[in-house]
Amino acid sequence: MSQELDPTTSAGATGVTAATGFRAAATTAGIKPSGKSDMALVVNDGPEYTAAAVFTRNRVVASPVKLTRAHNDGTFRAVVLNAGNANACNGEQGDRDAAATAEAVADRLGVDATDVAVCSTGLIGDTLPMDKVFNGVDTLTTDIRADAATSPESATAAAEAIMTTDLVSKQAVFHGDGWTLGGMGKGVGMMAPSLATMLIVLTTDAHVEDPAPALKASTEVTFDCVDIDGSTSTNDTVILMANGASGVTPSDEEFRTAVHAVCLDLAKQLQADAEGVTKRVSITVTGTDSDADAKVAARVLGRDSLFKCAMFGSDPNWGRTLAAVGMAPVAMDPDRISVSFNGQPVCVNATGAPGARDVDLSGTDIDVLVDLGTGGEGKATVWTTDLSHDYVHINSAYSS
Amino acid sequence: MSQELDPTTSAGATGVTAATGFRAAATTAGIKPSGKSDMALVVNDGPEYTAAAVFTRNRVVASPVKLTRAHNDGTFRAVVLNAGNANACNGEQGDRDAAATAEAVADRLGVDATDVAVCSTGLIGDTLPMDKVFNGVDTLTTDIRADAATSPESATAAAEAIMTTDLVSKQAVFHGDGWTLGGMGKGVGMMAPSLATMLIVLTTDAHVEDPAPALKASTEVTFDCVDIDGSTSTNDTVILMANGASGVTPSDEEFRTAVHAVCLDLAKQLQADAEGVTKRVSITVTGTDSDADAKVAARVLGRDSLFKCAMFGSDPNWGRTLAAVGMAPVAMDPDRISVSFNGQPVCVNATGAPGARDVDLSGTDIDVLVDLGTGGEGKATVWTTDLSHDYVHINSAYSS
Repeated sequence: MSQELDPTTSAGATGVTAATGFRAAATTAGIKPSGKSDMALVVNDGPEYTAAAVFTRNRVVASPVKLTRAHNDGTFRAVVLNAGNANACNGEQGDRDAAATAEAVADRLGVDATDVAVCSTGLIGDTLPMDKVFNGVDTLTTDIRADAATSPESATAAAEAIMTTDLVSKQAVFHGDGWTLGGMGKGVGMMAPSLATMLIVLTTDAHVEDPAPALKASTEVTFDCVDIDGSTSTNDTVILMANGASGVTPSDEEFRTAVHAVCLDLAKQLQADAEGVTKRVSITVTGTDSDADAKVAARVLGRDSLFKCAMFGSDPNWGRTLAAVGMAPVAMDPDRISVSFNGQPVCVNATGAPGARDVDLSGTDIDVLVDLGTGGEGKATVWTTDLSHDYVHINSAYSS
Repeated sequence: MSQELDPTTSAGATGVTAATGFRAAATTAGIKPSGKSDMALVVNDGPEYTAAAVFTRNRVVASPVKLTRAHNDGTFRAVVLNAGNANACNGEQGDRDAAATAEAVADRLGVDATDVAVCSTGLIGDTLPMDKVFNGVDTLTTDIRADAATSPESATAAAEAIMTTDLVSKQAVFHGDGWTLGGMGKGVGMMAPSLATMLIVLTTDAHVEDPAPALKASTEVTFDCVDIDGSTSTNDTVILMANGASGVTPSDEEFRTAVHAVCLDLAKQLQADAEGVTKRVSITVTGTDSDADAKVAARVLGRDSLFKCAMFGSDPNWGRTLAAVGMAPVAMDPDRISVSFNGQPVCVNATGAPGARDVDLSGTDIDVLVDLGTGGEGKATVWTTDLSHDYVHINSAYSS
C-alpha cells in the first residue's frame, strides 16, 4: 500500500478530476465584475453517487446552502458553483434562483434536481443575474461532455473559477492503493472562519458506503481549526462525492486518513492565502481538561486583535497571550500558564522567561504553544494569521 | 435640585478634585520611557472613607488588582496609580512590589496600608523599577499636602499621568444639589474591552452608606458596553470614594443618576480616544428575549473584524452585519432580522432594502440598529469603533 500526500497546489495534476470518473468545467458567465471566470461544474460519472456534506453553522444561511442541505440525502451527481455573488439574504427570490440553477443543471445533465448541489460565494444581498447564470449553465453542461473535462486542466480551471479574494487556487490529492481522493477549495471558513466563503469539493473513486462520519471527523480538526478572523460565512459548504470507479474499497481507517490528509492540505492552503496574511500562526493549547477546552482557548487567542497585531509586528509581546487566554471560558490555573514562541519559552508559570523579549518572530511561520496549567491531557491546534494593514485595506476598500 | 452633566473633558474644572475633600498629585517618576508624567495619587480627606470597586473579569490578573481586591472592604483613603508598567505576570515579585507601593504610601500618609488602592497600567511582564516608584511616592505624598492639591489643575495632572496610548486625558463631573461627583479615567476596557488597561477613579463628597450597588449597576451599562477590540486587560479597575464632606445624603436614585452620568461620560470619552479610531460606532440590538441576549449579540457584532473594516471604509455592507449576528448564541428569527444604518433601513426581514448600498456612512458617528426578529422586548447598546490602519499600526509597531 503506497499512501502519500502530494502537497503540490494550483498545479495541473491535482484536484477534483484526479479520481477516476469525475469531470470538471469552468466558464466566465459575467457574474464577477472583474470579468474573470466565475462558474464551475463538477460531475460524477458514477457508477456510484455516494455523497456527504457539511455546512456553515451560521443561523443566517444563504439560499444555496438551504437548497443543498435539503438535497443532502447521501447522493449528489453534480455540484454547480459560482463566485461573485453569494445569493445570501435575498429572501424567497434567492431561494427560487438557487432552485432554478439546480434545475437547469439537472435538466441539461438528465439527472434529478435533488441530486445537484449548488454553492455560491461573493457579495451578500444582491440577487443573482439569472440570465447570466443560465447562459453559464448552458456552457458548463456542454463543455463537461468533452474529453478534456477529465483533464487536470479542467480541475484547475474549476478551482480558479470559484476564487473571490483568493490570490491562488487551492487543490490537493491523496493517492491510495489503487484509488484516489482529490479536492478543490476557496476562501477560508467553516466553524468560525472567515472572510469570504469557504467552499470545498472533494471527489474520490473509492467505494465508500457512508463517507459522512469520515468527512465530519476530518472537518472538525482541519477546516474547523482554521480561524482567520472569527467571522463565519453564510455560505460555507464542504461536499464529498464518491463513485467507486476504482473498484477499491479502502478500510475505514485508510479512508479517514485520506480525507483528513486532503482536508488538512486544503485548510493549510486557505490559511496561507488568507486576506492580508503576512504570518501563518499555529496556536497549540495544552494542559486543559479536554480537547474541546483546548480548542476554545486556542480560538480565543486566535481571535484576539492585540495578539494578532503583535504577530504582524514580529513582536514577542507574550503578555497579550496571557491576557487573551485569561478570558477563555475554560478551566485553567492562572499561576501556572506557560507560553512558548517558536519553541522558546517566553513565559513560565505566568512569569516572563529570560530572553523573552528577544525571541525572533521575523519569519513567516510562528508556532505558539500555551499550557493552561491544569495538568489535564486536553490539546488542540488552531491555525490563524496576523492582523495586517492589508487585511484592513482589503476589507474596508471593497464591498466584498 | 439642579443636576447637570458637564461634558467638558480634559479641562481644569472637572475631575477627581471637583468634590470637596479630595486631593490629587502627579509626578514624573521615570517609569514611562517617554519621560512624561507617570504616577498619580488621589487622597480622600474625609470625614468619611466609604469606597467601592469593580475589577477586571480576566482570570489572569495583575498584582495591583490582587492587592486592591484584597483591600476592598468598603474603605479606601488613597489610590496610587502608575502608567508605563502594568506589574502583571511578574509572579511573587510583582505581588511584593504592589504591596510595598501601598505600604510606602500608607506610611507617608499615616494611614493603614489596607486603606490604599494600587492601580498600574502599561507593558505586561516587566518588573516595576521600585527605586523610581519609591521616589515617586515620596514626591507625591509631599506634593499632596500643598493647597494646590485640591485645585482643578491637580486633577488634570493626575488624569494625564495615568495616560498610556491615550491621546487626551479623560475627566467628568456631575453636580448634584450641594454635592458633587467627579472622576478621571484612562484606556478603555472592563468586561470585554480592551487595549491597554482601563483605570477609573471616581470621587464624591456625598454621604453614601454603600456605593457598591450603584457602581456595579452603572459599570454594567457603561464601561461594560464599550467593546473596542474584544480584549480584556489584566489590570482594569474602577474605584469610587465617598467622603460625605458636603453633608448631603442624596437619594439612592439621585446617586445612581450621578454615578451613571459620570461613568457614561467617561465611557464615551474612552470610545472616542480608542487606539486608531476614525469612527464611533453605536450598536443597538432589539427584538431579543432579554436585554442580556441583546448585549451578547451587540458584542458579537462589535467584535467582528469584517464589520469593523466596513465601518472604517464607510461601506454600508449590511451583509456582514447579518453574517456576524447570525453567529450570536442567542434566540433569533433569521428570516426576520432587520438592520438600519444611521436610521435608514438597509435590510428588512433579512433582505436588502432599496438604496441600501447608497447609505452615507462618511461621518464620524455611525448608528447601527439590529432587530433580531423574535418579537421580544430585549434591548442593549454596545459602543465600538472601526478597525483602522492606525489600530494595526499602533498595536504592531510597539510593545505596549
